[in-house]
Amino acid sequence: MNKSPGRWSAETETHVQFFDLDPMEIVWHGRYVKYLEIVRGVLLDTIDYNYVQMKASGYIWPVIDMRLRYIASATFGQQLKLRAEIVEWESRLKIDYLITDAASERRITRASTTQVAIEIATREMCFVSPPVLFEKLGVAPS
Amino acid sequence: MNKSPGRWSAETETHVQFFDLDPMEIVWHGRYVKYLEIVRGVLLDTIDYNYVQMKASGYIWPVIDMRLRYIASATFGQQLKLRAEIVEWESRLKIDYLITDAASERRITRASTTQVAIEIATREMCFVSPPVLFEKLGVAPS
Amino acid sequence: MNKSPGRWSAETETHVQFFDLDPMEIVWHGRYVKYLEIVRGVLLDTIDYNYVQMKASGYIWPVIDMRLRYIASATFGQQLKLRAEIVEWESRLKIDYLITDAASERRITRASTTQVAIEIATREMCFVSPPVLFEKLGVAPS
Amino acid sequence: MNKSPGRWSAETETHVQFFDLDPMEIVWHGRYVKYLEIVRGVLLDTIDYNYVQMKASGYIWPVIDMRLRYIASATFGQQLKLRAEIVEWESRLKIDYLITDAASERRITRASTTQVAIEIATREMCFVSPPVLFEKLGVAPS
Repeated sequence: MNKSPGRWSAETETHVQFFDLDPMEIVWHGRYVKYLEIVRGVLLDTIDYNYVQMKASGYIWPVIDMRLRYIASATFGQQLKLRAEIVEWESRLKIDYLITDAASERRITRASTTQVAIEIATREMCFVSPPVLFEKLGVAPS
Repeated sequence: MNKSPGRWSAETETHVQFFDLDPMEIVWHGRYVKYLEIVRGVLLDTIDYNYVQMKASGYIWPVIDMRLRYIASATFGQQLKLRAEIVEWESRLKIDYLITDAASERRITRASTTQVAIEIATREMCFVSPPVLFEKLGVAPS
Repeated sequence: MNKSPGRWSAETETHVQFFDLDPMEIVWHGRYVKYLEIVRGVLLDTIDYNYVQMKASGYIWPVIDMRLRYIASATFGQQLKLRAEIVEWESRLKIDYLITDAASERRITRASTTQVAIEIATREMCFVSPPVLFEKLGVAPS
Repeated sequence: MNKSPGRWSAETETHVQFFDLDPMEIVWHGRYVKYLEIVRGVLLDTIDYNYVQMKASGYIWPVIDMRLRYIASATFGQQLKLRAEIVEWESRLKIDYLITDAASERRITRASTTQVAIEIATREMCFVSPPVLFEKLGVAPS
């Protein structure tokens, strides 16, 4: 299968809140996981396969791997641009992320998450993504 | 019914973590809600009616009212004593809380939460606490 | 002084995220404190006296009292309207909040927070709000 | 330099709280970052170089890289064992983590974090760990 980078991607913005800051007056590193989920939700909405549709399709998709690379810090009131892109889907759903300063496009964080399908009925992990994901993506299974 | 203050009470301790601090280097005021839930869980375990038993009994008990009074701040590494006590139960479950510095007993926060039973089957709010709560408390319904 | 309700008010919206849900699939009650802070930030920006300007003015304004009344629950993907209004300012800064469903205006949560000024230099609590607050509000001290 | 695995390691336990659960009734994947920080704090206390001592030494140590591998899920009331071990220190501080079920030792999560020193005075990142870290670890700089 021919991977087309950017074929399924989304972006949104968020505003750094006081409650996400640590004593260094920067966003605590663990809170970036929320930013990833915000833009992942926007991305999954574009393919009509977010949390509600996943459950309705008989699958949950837990995150099994997550990596974050912190390049710069974010501070109070800063407007952040959040980008997400599906980069793998055949056996697992891998999404890459880039968080930048919305004004300057300066890079702040790079990240990726990997999710696998678990069939709700059997609680078994799927070693190939279920047909519903291919349908939602509009591609043929390999 | 004769209310016996302290009849159902519990205490535990927690350690202030870095991720709960705000830029003032004190615990962000919203994170005290977690401390309340930690000691409420200990209290509800003592009457064998915590989240799991609530669901098994056919009821959920959402918080409908919460009040916090902040007296002093808590800082990194501080050991806190958390106390909770059931003060009402006949028509709703009201719990009072006191958070103190574990070493000095200096008061940090006072709080209360009020929960009501909702029957899972009907989604209806109960205007009198269901019999299971009285059984767990070992008291007769009024 | 003649209190004009609504003279200083603000509103914004937020989208319920997966990470704010609890096992009941509704927003965990403690996370509403974040919603309060989001709209309080918008409100304080309108009078140019948010966190950064507070510190620059020589004062911090910790929350000393917070009350929340939960009327209905909020669920995944719901769009919420957040409103905040300054209702007291002379000796303390009291803000009332109303959170509603953005589409139906159905009430979800009512809340209030009270903050007092602490002078950074002396660490002393102010029993009357400092002149800077009256300047920012454009009113004369009483 | 001869790396001695396990030379600097620590363990502690934590109890899964309701507020850390998601709608699947398991700990939301992002909240494991808190568990990492809890045991990292215990580990850094053993070498007397936790947040307070870091600042006093003139350095902050932001996390620049974090990886988590989720093996199994954790549920309400579960007791977790958290382990951390320093595995690199010469140019950066890398810590590996293992989270297991406290009773069965079943593996739940593996993770690592990498921190680098930034000199507070100059805001410059250190490409070699500052002497204070070697002193705290009781080893000679390479």
